[in-house]
Amino acid sequence: MANEEPKTVPQQIIMKGGDGPLSYAKNSSLQKGVVDATKGMIIHAIANNLDMDKFCSQSSSQTFRIADFGCSIGPNTIFSMQNIIQALEQKHHENNHGNSPTILEFQLFFNDHSTNDFNTLFKSIPPSWPYFVAGVPGSFYRRLFPKSSIHIGHSSNALQWLSKVPQEVVDCKSPAYNDGSIYCRGIEKEVTKAYIAQFEKDMESFLNGRGEELVNGGLMVILMGGVPNGIPLSHTAIGKFYDLFGSCLLDLTNKGLVNEEKVKSFNLPLYFPSAKEVKELIERNGRFSIESMNEITEQLKRGQPLPSAQNCISHVRAGFEGLIKDHFGTEIVDEFFACYAKKHLQSGFVFGDNGVDNTLMFMILKRI
Amino acid sequence: MANEEPKTVPQQIIMKGGDGPLSYAKNSSLQKGVVDATKGMIIHAIANNLDMDKFCSQSSSQTFRIADFGCSIGPNTIFSMQNIIQALEQKHHENNHGNSPTILEFQLFFNDHSTNDFNTLFKSIPPSWPYFVAGVPGSFYRRLFPKSSIHIGHSSNALQWLSKVPQEVVDCKSPAYNDGSIYCRGIEKEVTKAYIAQFEKDMESFLNGRGEELVNGGLMVILMGGVPNGIPLSHTAIGKFYDLFGSCLLDLTNKGLVNEEKVKSFNLPLYFPSAKEVKELIERNGRFSIESMNEITEQLKRGQPLPSAQNCISHVRAGFEGLIKDHFGTEIVDEFFACYAKKHLQSGFVFGDNGVDNTLMFMILKRI
Repeated sequence: MANEEPKTVPQQIIMKGGDGPLSYAKNSSLQKGVVDATKGMIIHAIANNLDMDKFCSQSSSQTFRIADFGCSIGPNTIFSMQNIIQALEQKHHENNHGNSPTILEFQLFFNDHSTNDFNTLFKSIPPSWPYFVAGVPGSFYRRLFPKSSIHIGHSSNALQWLSKVPQEVVDCKSPAYNDGSIYCRGIEKEVTKAYIAQFEKDMESFLNGRGEELVNGGLMVILMGGVPNGIPLSHTAIGKFYDLFGSCLLDLTNKGLVNEEKVKSFNLPLYFPSAKEVKELIERNGRFSIESMNEITEQLKRGQPLPSAQNCISHVRAGFEGLIKDHFGTEIVDEFFACYAKKHLQSGFVFGDNGVDNTLMFMILKRI
Repeated sequence: MANEEPKTVPQQIIMKGGDGPLSYAKNSSLQKGVVDATKGMIIHAIANNLDMDKFCSQSSSQTFRIADFGCSIGPNTIFSMQNIIQALEQKHHENNHGNSPTILEFQLFFNDHSTNDFNTLFKSIPPSWPYFVAGVPGSFYRRLFPKSSIHIGHSSNALQWLSKVPQEVVDCKSPAYNDGSIYCRGIEKEVTKAYIAQFEKDMESFLNGRGEELVNGGLMVILMGGVPNGIPLSHTAIGKFYDLFGSCLLDLTNKGLVNEEKVKSFNLPLYFPSAKEVKELIERNGRFSIESMNEITEQLKRGQPLPSAQNCISHVRAGFEGLIKDHFGTEIVDEFFACYAKKHLQSGFVFGDNGVDNTLMFMILKRI
């Protein structure tokens, strides 16, 4: 139960550990932009949707338990937690007109796969942080916490990662075989159907798990990547990026550096849903009410400087090195990312300037 | 508070990570003997000293929270947790005549310094374990958990490690300067006084922290190394080992491989108390009642095969490599342990056969 990883989870969905120049810790500034942009929205959501008095007992202290699902190795999870705490403290202060008899204690749980680099994460926690912290290893598509033990759940840029690649899309005998592509383009009907089925199953597991773990009235703050309603992923900026990324595998195959069969059996365990799809899944599941749901792409882009090409390239490596290493072997990793960097620079690729803008969904769900 | 390490904690008190041939994970069989030998005692202690009904609410499930303080990287912490859970389940079953309406859920917290190798620990947790697990980074001489949130605390072979070496014993101008020795021999009055003061301060911090964190009626299971009442450590088996260990530093100094000043400023942050001292400290602190206190050396030795010399040598390296590396630098580590291995074999050193037997104190404390 608690610590059991789904058997077919690709353990490689792990951002690059350590804190070296190629690590995720040093290459997650794109996500940091998201964290900053949503800070105000989190404060607003907690102010408007959380009934704190319901949780505050009559005793002199009250523990709030907050969990980040898919935390990776920092530092963004640290910023997100800090934002949630600030929102809770602000609300508590206002509720009590600045004169509260109850001291709030915070216990923060950082969750990710058991192969995540928790050592690096723990070292990045500020030594002066006045909170109780814990790392929780395991897939968030399973139960991770005791019943009714979490007040606020958070998940940022994690739920588009599936628990596994649907088997059919890498089976060349299946009608859902994803011939010539490494991701769910949203064009081929059978491929898309297989990806959607996996996404629905995973979301259901996630909502059921959190439904058990959150206290009644507790909030889930979810940020996840998506597509505008009716737009296939291949027409979006992220789709264009995966096309570029996938073309490097073909180049390496043509050079005889990568086995063709290996390439045929490689797909990304990712699905970018539309807001409509996500809304329907949450409603069908029935454990949470949707307090708010926004697509925040435009807000995010305003005032956010575009990262440099070199930043983008490092970022891509930090996020995808594990997947490439796991499927194709360590020896190909440098060659692959050198190829990617070259193509990225040659094509003048700019994230967000190619294809339709992707959406970033920001949702506040309440456990009912 | 929660995650803050005492500023002067020697971060090096970390068993060697990973799972290679020299790692602690592969060289902790001596401690495993202790875990096995105390299993029956833990079952007995929980059966007799824990009022489970007090914790079991009227709801259909009940979460027990168990914390291991100073867990290192496994596998012994896994065995210890398993023993405690077995004891709780057995008692629950007997209390309800095998027919219980309440399902027990277990949340297990593994605590050690933030520099502990939690990645290795998490990977060693059985995937099929039906418990909720979390790693908690931070010194156990600080608060680590919210108020009244832990039902059973456990600490094995950890409390003899001090939060730091008392400053006076490595200050050659101090009357407490520990000239020519690397540990508290228990002979030199001023040196011993300084070590005792540090030990008392640390134990007080530990008891105060756990006093806040354990629920009323919760149990602390403590195993810690010690000396028989009135016997100085230098007369015991552990003292003889530290003499041998320390002599290697002198050898390396004589060979010009280690700086003499470095050796003079090196002492082990360890204190082995007598049962009498520990009892007095707990009583003076007043937050726990002593339900039982045993010295279990003799029981332990019976039926336990002596480890081979090579096992002992690997074991010593797994436990002390971090300390040596941190104080003297990486480049000396191999040389030092080669010297140690040679001396160990030449002297025919056998743990427990030199000097007076050390005691291993097994205590059950109840939070009052």
